[in-house]
Amino acid sequence: MVKVGVAGYGVIGQRLADGVARQKDMELVGVADVAPTLPVRALAEKGMPYKLFTAVPEKRNLLDDVGIPVSGTLEELVQEVDIMLDATNAGVGAKNKEIYQKYNTKAVFQGGEKNNVADVFFHGYANYEKGIGADYLKLTSCNTTGLIRAIDAIDRAVGVVKTAITIIRRVADPGDYHRGLTNALQVAEAPNHQALDLMTIMPHVDATGILIHTPVTHGHIITPVVTTKKKMHKEELLEIFKAHPRIRVVRLADGFLGNASLFKYARDLGHPRGDMYEIAVWEETIVNSGDDIMFAINIPQEAVVIPENMDAIRAALKMQTSRDEGVAKTNEYLGMKARG
Amino acid sequence: MVKVGVAGYGVIGQRLADGVARQKDMELVGVADVAPTLPVRALAEKGMPYKLFTAVPEKRNLLDDVGIPVSGTLEELVQEVDIMLDATNAGVGAKNKEIYQKYNTKAVFQGGEKNNVADVFFHGYANYEKGIGADYLKLTSCNTTGLIRAIDAIDRAVGVVKTAITIIRRVADPGDYHRGLTNALQVAEAPNHQALDLMTIMPHVDATGILIHTPVTHGHIITPVVTTKKKMHKEELLEIFKAHPRIRVVRLADGFLGNASLFKYARDLGHPRGDMYEIAVWEETIVNSGDDIMFAINIPQEAVVIPENMDAIRAALKMQTSRDEGVAKTNEYLGMKARG
Amino acid sequence: MVKVGVAGYGVIGQRLADGVARQKDMELVGVADVAPTLPVRALAEKGMPYKLFTAVPEKRNLLDDVGIPVSGTLEELVQEVDIMLDATNAGVGAKNKEIYQKYNTKAVFQGGEKNNVADVFFHGYANYEKGIGADYLKLTSCNTTGLIRAIDAIDRAVGVVKTAITIIRRVADPGDYHRGLTNALQVAEAPNHQALDLMTIMPHVDATGILIHTPVTHGHIITPVVTTKKKMHKEELLEIFKAHPRIRVVRLADGFLGNASLFKYARDLGHPRGDMYEIAVWEETIVNSGDDIMFAINIPQEAVVIPENMDAIRAALKMQTSRDEGVAKTNEYLGMKARG
Amino acid sequence: MVKVGVAGYGVIGQRLADGVARQKDMELVGVADVAPTLPVRALAEKGMPYKLFTAVPEKRNLLDDVGIPVSGTLEELVQEVDIMLDATNAGVGAKNKEIYQKYNTKAVFQGGEKNNVADVFFHGYANYEKGIGADYLKLTSCNTTGLIRAIDAIDRAVGVVKTAITIIRRVADPGDYHRGLTNALQVAEAPNHQALDLMTIMPHVDATGILIHTPVTHGHIITPVVTTKKKMHKEELLEIFKAHPRIRVVRLADGFLGNASLFKYARDLGHPRGDMYEIAVWEETIVNSGDDIMFAINIPQEAVVIPENMDAIRAALKMQTSRDEGVAKTNEYLGMKARG
Repeated sequence: MVKVGVAGYGVIGQRLADGVARQKDMELVGVADVAPTLPVRALAEKGMPYKLFTAVPEKRNLLDDVGIPVSGTLEELVQEVDIMLDATNAGVGAKNKEIYQKYNTKAVFQGGEKNNVADVFFHGYANYEKGIGADYLKLTSCNTTGLIRAIDAIDRAVGVVKTAITIIRRVADPGDYHRGLTNALQVAEAPNHQALDLMTIMPHVDATGILIHTPVTHGHIITPVVTTKKKMHKEELLEIFKAHPRIRVVRLADGFLGNASLFKYARDLGHPRGDMYEIAVWEETIVNSGDDIMFAINIPQEAVVIPENMDAIRAALKMQTSRDEGVAKTNEYLGMKARG
Repeated sequence: MVKVGVAGYGVIGQRLADGVARQKDMELVGVADVAPTLPVRALAEKGMPYKLFTAVPEKRNLLDDVGIPVSGTLEELVQEVDIMLDATNAGVGAKNKEIYQKYNTKAVFQGGEKNNVADVFFHGYANYEKGIGADYLKLTSCNTTGLIRAIDAIDRAVGVVKTAITIIRRVADPGDYHRGLTNALQVAEAPNHQALDLMTIMPHVDATGILIHTPVTHGHIITPVVTTKKKMHKEELLEIFKAHPRIRVVRLADGFLGNASLFKYARDLGHPRGDMYEIAVWEETIVNSGDDIMFAINIPQEAVVIPENMDAIRAALKMQTSRDEGVAKTNEYLGMKARG
Repeated sequence: MVKVGVAGYGVIGQRLADGVARQKDMELVGVADVAPTLPVRALAEKGMPYKLFTAVPEKRNLLDDVGIPVSGTLEELVQEVDIMLDATNAGVGAKNKEIYQKYNTKAVFQGGEKNNVADVFFHGYANYEKGIGADYLKLTSCNTTGLIRAIDAIDRAVGVVKTAITIIRRVADPGDYHRGLTNALQVAEAPNHQALDLMTIMPHVDATGILIHTPVTHGHIITPVVTTKKKMHKEELLEIFKAHPRIRVVRLADGFLGNASLFKYARDLGHPRGDMYEIAVWEETIVNSGDDIMFAINIPQEAVVIPENMDAIRAALKMQTSRDEGVAKTNEYLGMKARG
Repeated sequence: MVKVGVAGYGVIGQRLADGVARQKDMELVGVADVAPTLPVRALAEKGMPYKLFTAVPEKRNLLDDVGIPVSGTLEELVQEVDIMLDATNAGVGAKNKEIYQKYNTKAVFQGGEKNNVADVFFHGYANYEKGIGADYLKLTSCNTTGLIRAIDAIDRAVGVVKTAITIIRRVADPGDYHRGLTNALQVAEAPNHQALDLMTIMPHVDATGILIHTPVTHGHIITPVVTTKKKMHKEELLEIFKAHPRIRVVRLADGFLGNASLFKYARDLGHPRGDMYEIAVWEETIVNSGDDIMFAINIPQEAVVIPENMDAIRAALKMQTSRDEGVAKTNEYLGMKARG
């Protein structure tokens, strides 16, 4: 049983904790945060299924004052664990790294941190090997993680030369009042960082693209145009995607009309928090553009990176030393399997 | 163990089934629907925790063709149960009633049906007694159910003379692509039906109001101005609401910034589907207007009527013959308790 | 011809300039701003119908560099005019006041400034007399301005005792990317400032209320519950509102389905910028709550304060020394008239 | 002076009428519609700048009853004009065609009609020649019209082989309460009809693509990936687009942050109805994907087709018998010119 801690108990941190708790070969020692945010209040209302550590000891009174039990400090948590998953706000992870280094504790950072915080920029399916034994890993962001699942699967089948992607981004998470967009599509400077990040993980692919923010809260949609070494037809692509445990092929004809259908379906499935780990591809969107192929992916932004974070723990702690074994364990414990 | 069936496995029907399954003194015999909608597909993907009956036998092939197991017909289900919860689309319930009558099976209809489908227009807290032993009950709609919880609580404390309510209505449920509103507030003719419905349940109260549709999916907000027999101050109102197991008092200062915060919080609590049964009242919105009192309520439209439906079963089947005992059992099994 | 300058050429400043330009007894000397914002770029593309002055001389190069002609500095503009309309961002007006005072130039500030920037908190219809000859006036904000038009009209007819208002607020203006709200209703602490501001202008009225932000860009909707000295019926209220040049009575039955219909209609009318100066009241929303009366108002937030600003100039410069004459001139030049 | 009539006075019909009224070599005889919709009411409130004809004589009372002056019937209008612009709801145009044929009146149909209603599927810039002297023309829809402007410009410069387009579609027009989408992105079956339509106009180009509906009202955004015969770099593309009178190159750095900025800017420019005829291309979105080029276009859906409709009149009535002369006249009268 490897011991894991989580720093930052927000949208991602909560889900990382839940994900670790589902791995039968990992023990979640606790989570760290600063203030009685809604997730921390919910943790208390649930009866503290996870121990909470204060990330800023001098602000511990914020938690004490509202009667939320505190089990110690982040620094104490770091000493108890083999690896930390850091899901704090961008920039905080770099500071926390000093604590991790002080105690020789490995750590996995999230997409918001700068690349130089880590030794390896990691994706479970695309470069598991690079993470094996690494001390500091950084995961790709939600869009990039999901996109690479698809591009890597195609690449392993027929080789990917280049891709031009349009990202139709949800602008805020459900319940987020700090960011927002009202009746507007916001254009970002191209190329988007997801294309650049993809090239860091898959340097042999030429990637670029445009990102547009849209006023919705559930799921980015990405429409990559992919140039392959050998022309790929719709049926072949479907076969590859259906065989992938982290890709769900859905059909408009079955009622999956858009990103909100997938969120609804995850709730109807009874998934905790209404989360979905898989990206989805709409069967009816797959088309050839000459010898290129194009399709639409749904990225469930709140939960999509959880499996790859579990993979990162497995690689860093050498729990499994091959990609296939590593991702298979994660998939097993998170209940993901090929549906093809 | 009373036996219960559910007709219509949509937004409300799914939650009714889940609610019945949580009542230790009830047995959910099965649910009925017609087509392989997303909820029905999710039921199958979960391994059929509930038996499915076809509501339209001649369309059974719709389910068979996609491999969803069918346990019989609605008519068969009706014969096996003591009471049906009918959550079909508006108008279908009236037709289904013929089947219920044929087998002398009691039934509870939802807010969308016309009042004359039922003998009693029912609300667990406001008129439980009227439902005792009744054959056909109709529940109030989501807004009215939640609103009456608050108005009834005030009424029992100091007496309510009249109320003028503004309903700020979410226009569609999450995942609903058939209704929608984009960058617009839509005004409805006054008085709204919720005020009229409230008067049917609480005939001694003079109610009226205006309803505005807004482009959001999580939770109606209602701002009633209530004229009481005896002036009520904020602290008294808070005390009453905190003592009510189906009302949750929340604070802006704690991070509950709007309707989306409550949906998020329910997800963070790990509630199935991210549902919340309680209405919420924001502490910082309670103000006196002269001798009247005004406040803002959140109505979680997908789940709010579930407890009162359980109450209706209890009343109709005389499982508990007093309001206090009836609602207490529902509250116990659904995990709702006073937080005051 | 009185001479007028405008400081701040944003959403309000542009419309103030247009409004002044339409007053046959006023001369718009120019507008002041700092940077080549979209409104300033549009002014240039239109061929500079208004002269532009730089508000921050040391940043004049921002304008020069993109070839936008600058006619001088704000300080020079202030010396050329009889009165300044200050529509700068909140807080800047207080600083600008030093310049206005230096040259004994009167000024009108907008709702975002603190009350103490001015000698008089002004509303054209409700307290014109207080503004006569005043040096520094502050206008009410958009919601309050529109609301007072309605409440003042009722007050003059039968006397208003108190009002409890629900404000359903649009969260951002069209084209605003800096504020936003996505799939959420945001609750504000009660009482809202609009109720408090109303009492500053109409101290004999007891006002309170709740404000909810909604993710739309066109027009706030307010639903006041008004307690009058003498009960008022729908037909009487309609008569009063139809006789008011700044109130437009509309009907759902005619196709005015919500706030977006009014914006559309203003565009269809060919109004510059698609603006509407009148508030609207939906006929079908007027209901009695006991002896109180309730209705729904639309507030076109971008343009509603323009008429009252023109009134403020008239009062401050004693162009008309009675309310009726003052507002009549504004109405005439802006094309507003009773439709009753 | 050629004589023009407009059938259907809705979103497009109003703008067609305004467009014709601005052509110095055309006379707008009148517009036809059925009911007192908001546009028709606005026409009346403006004092009937255009004569109104009833499209359904037996329903003329709908207009008479509310005092809107009617100048005759659609059939009478058709006899008075050289050409009709038909902007009625999809399917009505096909019926109206019988009237047009009866009186040998030419007609231009809009994108919603089926292709077989017309002899020529027309685009002013891409195939003006085909429309010369034609009796019945059909215009491309808003997205296709704007998209073809860009693709045709590239094609004439270096030759276009294929294009894979992502259309991020606004789901409803401002003020539209009949369609809507709330917190959801809706995926359409690929390839989208715009790609197919493009190939009808430009048969030598291989086009496909995916369309996603988004909950906004102002301006579609399209991100085409274009494979050219000769690689094109950003600077060349900018030069071509800047030289095109119907394409506006804008920059994020100048404050054009998305589709809502362009609508705002058109309002700030004082354009009637806040309309913009030009498509816009964001300079910072232009990127090469290998030898392909990709960029983001804004399509102002309400007004974009107006210029090409004017072109269609010119071609059909042989007012100008070359593309360059035809589009130049339209551009002159509508105030569009190259900004390069």
